Amino acid sequence: MFESAALGRKYSDKEFEQKAPALRLRLFNAQRQCLKRRIPILIIVAGLEGSGRGAIVNMLSEWMDSKHVRNHIFWLPTDEERTRPRPWRFWRCLPPAGEIGVFYDGWYSEDLRRLCCKKINDAEFSKCMHQWCALESGLADAGMGIVKLWLHLDKKTHAANVNKRLNNKALLHFSPYDKKTAADYEGMVNAASRAITLTDRDNAPWSIIDAADPNFRVLSVANAVIAGMERAIAARDAREARLQQLATLETDSAPAEKETLISTLDAIDLSVSQQPEHYKKELKNLQESIRTLSYRTYQRGISCTLLFEGWDAAGKGGAIRRITSAVDARITRVIPISAPSDEELAHPYLWRFWRHIPRSGFVTIYDRSWYGRVLVERVEKLTPREDWSRAYAEINQFENQLTSRNNVLLKFWLHISPEEQLRRFKERENTPWKQYKITDEDWRNREKWSDYARAADEMFLRTSTVNAPWHIIPAENKKYARLAVLRAYEAALRAALKKKGKE
Amino acid sequence: MFESAALGRKYSDKEFEQKAPALRLRLFNAQRQCLKRRIPILIIVAGLEGSGRGAIVNMLSEWMDSKHVRNHIFWLPTDEERTRPRPWRFWRCLPPAGEIGVFYDGWYSEDLRRLCCKKINDAEFSKCMHQWCALESGLADAGMGIVKLWLHLDKKTHAANVNKRLNNKALLHFSPYDKKTAADYEGMVNAASRAITLTDRDNAPWSIIDAADPNFRVLSVANAVIAGMERAIAARDAREARLQQLATLETDSAPAEKETLISTLDAIDLSVSQQPEHYKKELKNLQESIRTLSYRTYQRGISCTLLFEGWDAAGKGGAIRRITSAVDARITRVIPISAPSDEELAHPYLWRFWRHIPRSGFVTIYDRSWYGRVLVERVEKLTPREDWSRAYAEINQFENQLTSRNNVLLKFWLHISPEEQLRRFKERENTPWKQYKITDEDWRNREKWSDYARAADEMFLRTSTVNAPWHIIPAENKKYARLAVLRAYEAALRAALKKKGKE
Repeated sequence: MFESAALGRKYSDKEFEQKAPALRLRLFNAQRQCLKRRIPILIIVAGLEGSGRGAIVNMLSEWMDSKHVRNHIFWLPTDEERTRPRPWRFWRCLPPAGEIGVFYDGWYSEDLRRLCCKKINDAEFSKCMHQWCALESGLADAGMGIVKLWLHLDKKTHAANVNKRLNNKALLHFSPYDKKTAADYEGMVNAASRAITLTDRDNAPWSIIDAADPNFRVLSVANAVIAGMERAIAARDAREARLQQLATLETDSAPAEKETLISTLDAIDLSVSQQPEHYKKELKNLQESIRTLSYRTYQRGISCTLLFEGWDAAGKGGAIRRITSAVDARITRVIPISAPSDEELAHPYLWRFWRHIPRSGFVTIYDRSWYGRVLVERVEKLTPREDWSRAYAEINQFENQLTSRNNVLLKFWLHISPEEQLRRFKERENTPWKQYKITDEDWRNREKWSDYARAADEMFLRTSTVNAPWHIIPAENKKYARLAVLRAYEAALRAALKKKGKE
Repeated sequence: MFESAALGRKYSDKEFEQKAPALRLRLFNAQRQCLKRRIPILIIVAGLEGSGRGAIVNMLSEWMDSKHVRNHIFWLPTDEERTRPRPWRFWRCLPPAGEIGVFYDGWYSEDLRRLCCKKINDAEFSKCMHQWCALESGLADAGMGIVKLWLHLDKKTHAANVNKRLNNKALLHFSPYDKKTAADYEGMVNAASRAITLTDRDNAPWSIIDAADPNFRVLSVANAVIAGMERAIAARDAREARLQQLATLETDSAPAEKETLISTLDAIDLSVSQQPEHYKKELKNLQESIRTLSYRTYQRGISCTLLFEGWDAAGKGGAIRRITSAVDARITRVIPISAPSDEELAHPYLWRFWRHIPRSGFVTIYDRSWYGRVLVERVEKLTPREDWSRAYAEINQFENQLTSRNNVLLKFWLHISPEEQLRRFKERENTPWKQYKITDEDWRNREKWSDYARAADEMFLRTSTVNAPWHIIPAENKKYARLAVLRAYEAALRAALKKKGKE
């Protein structure tokens, strides 16, 4: 794989001076184009020890408009990072629209070192690589340009550079693996070759750079980054053209017929009710039990992510408050999801939810959630079909990461009938401190009941997975619904503790 | 102090039901007014163990529109928090414009517990209290409404509540101080009384709540929060009226005369130059020395904050790159400051700079900085005089926090003459990859040279402090300036290491 990257090609300083200005201008112009189109670019600078990654990071800031370049180094994770799913630390640093994020080593380096030191086996390594591959695909689908550089050295040059370093007392080896892996040429080259084979994709290809000669290295990197940006620009332009064409088609064609749909929701028995005399007692018992269990999950590092979706006025807020008054306020946070901020809009869709993912032991409750993508954004046509239809897979992958690491994930849909909604809307209009809850938008949404039902139906179908099933709660009777939510939460906590106990 | 808060007043459930609805509506409407005026509200819920802080946090979310309420609990700090100045963890959670931040325990609780356990003495405690007081004043000046609640209990009720808790095995004591302080009524009451005396201010007053009876507690808290919000609304309205009046006055009056000013900058000798034959060698030596020193500061947990201000085209970028190519990229970040995002605009001015404060051992370089407040925002009249003139004190306080904790702070002003600037502007226009650097705005700024000089002069006067002096670098000769910056940085690193060595 690396043969052609170890040919020892070089440029004299004179050749470099001849070639550099034109290339620099092209790189600079490509950056301008990305900024203008608001395309985020991610550049991963990975490579062997002594291959000049730091110099490349500096060169990129120098050759481009550094006001729009942010460098990130992923080194030993902090405890905030360690106590969340692995991708969290990378998500928090992703470049926003139009900006360049330069990731020194990126997400590959730690796994390469772990494989090289035999801290993980081949199967675990492959699993990690597939995870990063899926992450990159998701980002590329969301319009991010991804450039992955592997700075390579022939064995002799590597040995010389590493020796120079090891003799330099000033230089620190930051990570415990650094020193062990720095000198292990075969081990790292082998690991890198596996990583590149597993993660080289059209939408995020690797560029292998012959890095022995600084001049050759710089010019090769510039070429690779320009190519990556031009690829991202072409993809963006193609997408814009496609969307425009689709918009024309949709305007021309007749509206899609509304087939009669037998919905999952139609099958829900809304007549279930709760005897008032038992409600208070059962509520208290469930809350006490959840409080106790959540202290235990806290101690065992099990985090909980709960999300609530459902019709307007279905009682999400009331159900959430029955949980927050049970669980210790010190470990719980409620995140209401409304319109995104501009920082959130400038990032891939899931970024705003990754922000609030709980640390191990903690509880995050989302009042509305990432499912807005396939509900309101779909029905109100806020997002093109190609984006929301891709979201099912993105969401499943996201939730898979949440459930894979001692995280209980509970998804609730609170279901009521249109008649009950109407009754509650009217009641809200007549209660002074609830009037704000009812707006023209609510009445408009109500008219699209069947569109929302269809969207919800497809959502249940595509995202009710083994690890993260939907709990559809009949909520015509508020008390019944609250107890049902608490019961499901209690059961999930018990199951997680039992599973953990067996480990 | 607490006598009147231990009178054991209570409301029967019937009385509560009579009073609650009207109060709830008032609270709700006050929140609406704050949202409309984009006033952020901070509510600190502190109090004795067993006084119902958690219940109050829940009640606030229930009575207000919880979509705009975010609860934060400040418990054992994470390592990202521990390795930065203490206020950082609070800054990152401050409510944005129009939102309510509920801080469970807030910044007081840890100090109260430490005093109670005799981990700090009276003098240290007072120093902390003054720090929080100053923080609150800054926030209030920036338009934040601050409500501080102390939930009090008489000794008997406290003992009963604490006993109930200690016997409840489900309940965890999270912090190591929790258990010790929970039962120490006298100790905590004494600490609280000192804290309240030291930090009770007009712009952030304490409300002492008799918390023994849940009904009385809820109604008292609602009243206190309403009062706090109304205070913030009145302050905002008065400010708007004042600013409007001033705007009228300024339009009417003649423009302020431009007195001849003997500027600090005029005294700078711009004729200093650098012999080219020594430049390369000295640059290399300085960079190597800085690289070595910065590994040592990293190891000793000394962080560095560098900021660059100066005329357009004075060579800030070039000087910064000479530093980044010296210091290991893994510990350095460059933060270019341009227009704030909407999340940044919705927070107090310094929030966007607090975001990027380095962890101990790390280096953050700000390319332009918080001094924009008293430079461009002042000269271009982007910010009312009362805000930028207050900024000197705010900035000094901010920098004091940065320097008080093993943080080297270096402030550079790169100085050139108007003639040199003109020459560089023209050169930029003729260099393809520099053309973007020169815009109409740069030409406009140039015309206001004397206004900027005046603003810079006042800035040097007011913010050149013992711990954080300005380094005014003659930058007519780029090479001279770069070496001067590196020399100053090297000296600062040496001094910090020497000081640390003596500790």
